Amino acid sequence: MALPVAVDAMGGDRAPDEIVAGARLAVEELGVEVLLVGRPEDLKDTGGLDVLAASEVISMEEDAAQGVRRKKDSSLVRAAEAVRDGRALAMVSAGNTGATMASALLRMGRLKGVARPAIATPIPNLESHPTVLLDAGANAECNPSMLVQFAQMGSAYSSARYGVDDPSVALLSIGEESSKGSPLVKETHEALLSAERVRFVGNVEGRDLLHGVADVVVTDGFTGNVTLKTLEGALKFFMNAILGVIGTDEASKQAGAVLLPLLAPLAETFDPDNVGGAMLLGVDGVCVISHGSSSARAIVSAIHVAHDLAVAGLVDRLARAVAPA
Amino acid sequence: MALPVAVDAMGGDRAPDEIVAGARLAVEELGVEVLLVGRPEDLKDTGGLDVLAASEVISMEEDAAQGVRRKKDSSLVRAAEAVRDGRALAMVSAGNTGATMASALLRMGRLKGVARPAIATPIPNLESHPTVLLDAGANAECNPSMLVQFAQMGSAYSSARYGVDDPSVALLSIGEESSKGSPLVKETHEALLSAERVRFVGNVEGRDLLHGVADVVVTDGFTGNVTLKTLEGALKFFMNAILGVIGTDEASKQAGAVLLPLLAPLAETFDPDNVGGAMLLGVDGVCVISHGSSSARAIVSAIHVAHDLAVAGLVDRLARAVAPA
Repeated sequence: MALPVAVDAMGGDRAPDEIVAGARLAVEELGVEVLLVGRPEDLKDTGGLDVLAASEVISMEEDAAQGVRRKKDSSLVRAAEAVRDGRALAMVSAGNTGATMASALLRMGRLKGVARPAIATPIPNLESHPTVLLDAGANAECNPSMLVQFAQMGSAYSSARYGVDDPSVALLSIGEESSKGSPLVKETHEALLSAERVRFVGNVEGRDLLHGVADVVVTDGFTGNVTLKTLEGALKFFMNAILGVIGTDEASKQAGAVLLPLLAPLAETFDPDNVGGAMLLGVDGVCVISHGSSSARAIVSAIHVAHDLAVAGLVDRLARAVAPA
Repeated sequence: MALPVAVDAMGGDRAPDEIVAGARLAVEELGVEVLLVGRPEDLKDTGGLDVLAASEVISMEEDAAQGVRRKKDSSLVRAAEAVRDGRALAMVSAGNTGATMASALLRMGRLKGVARPAIATPIPNLESHPTVLLDAGANAECNPSMLVQFAQMGSAYSSARYGVDDPSVALLSIGEESSKGSPLVKETHEALLSAERVRFVGNVEGRDLLHGVADVVVTDGFTGNVTLKTLEGALKFFMNAILGVIGTDEASKQAGAVLLPLLAPLAETFDPDNVGGAMLLGVDGVCVISHGSSSARAIVSAIHVAHDLAVAGLVDRLARAVAPA
């Protein structure tokens, strides 16, 4: 029998119900195995899915390091252990991001040769496959050699996930010129020019991100997280603004009925539920971080990605990507 | 006679025609005086406006420091000198941002007590007056005491420009908790808690920027520039996506005719031409940086802001804001 994907049933704003519903859907639609991890008494109808009992929950607001240290029988820690022990292919959580990272890092361990794991987030565009942005928030402070590894891991991930052959890598900066940017960016630019297994195409700016300007965009975790949240905030703001003017009267309702279907491909492309979650790259296992407000549909996407990348040997590919030349 | 606003007639993608047209409109509509600065032979119909001859132009692509050092008779350098020499109230340019900053800094000088000038950019929202984001790109590397001064200057600017009494100041970070963020952000958070003349309300995230979460948001110039460009890129992307589906057939054309007027207030709020340009705070004079693609309408807004803030004594207010307690 195939190994299951371990799903933290207790993590996320809509846990456990939406998580369990998503897990059931994934089994039905994708034909994959799922292992729910959580408090059995809190899980309603699991539809016969296997449950790995974990008596504790690390909440969304809890301090990540402390939560993982203290709650050894939490769903997050147990899910990470299931991957470490070879009882699961991969783990998925929509819970506390920091605690998910800490659980994965402490239980699965760092991948050999990786200085610091990074969060890789897909940024959709209308032209082609998504751009992989990393680090999207794991490391608020970075040095150039960390960013070079992010470039290597991001490239391996873009290949594994989107089938990109020889992915292009760009560096997020405040101008295309190599003379612009923070000291970190200037040094990283130099380092990327001679990095092994990285096809560096230069600096890009924030405004380029939605245009599929490169297959991979690297940045430090502080800038990456601010950028990602700015982008998410702007898209949400705009979607709401449009929906806000539709339906205010009969004419706008009719106009909306014509235009919304035309905008559907756009809305679908940018719907966080379809994106499939962020991935923690650089730990010794596959770990997908779904957004906090994940619906059942988002969990299906996350399980799909986690399963496929585990089967595709992502971890081995990442290990080769960062290995010394 | 009132002093004029010095307008760099040669700067911007649409210079000199749109700049001259904007200057003429500003005189007509606002009743302010304008001094055009540029090559007289390149300026067509100036409508009788005074022209300060400058034989050189620093192009959009030119290295800023080098351009200012070498081209002493450039329109940018001459405009800054006109302010320094008391022949103009303020300067406005849609040209090379770096060269505009360098001209203002080198010719007007730094304001007493200011460590580093910063670019303050208004970020519109639908609730209230715009949020002032700074630094939007003048300083790619910052320390906590610089950010404290940005908070003080940003507050004085928010008061002078939007009439805000005791403006709130937030720090851009990757979480509301003071424990999150880069080392710079953590130290700055501490410093802002005890800063004079700053009403610090805590950390905010990128997704809060379009909601008028604070009157002033401070950040380093690297993060600020990436954030601003990400925001601009996302808004433009979305506007284009909507316009792209309207007019593809008769039904969508009609639907657009109903919805576009409803979206007009939104489009107008976020139209860069209406925002009035960014301002360089911390030099000894008023300097407005309009965006590179400025139309005549954008130049009118920029002249309006430059004039009103010079008359309102912005520079003195900034000097008081950063003075030791």
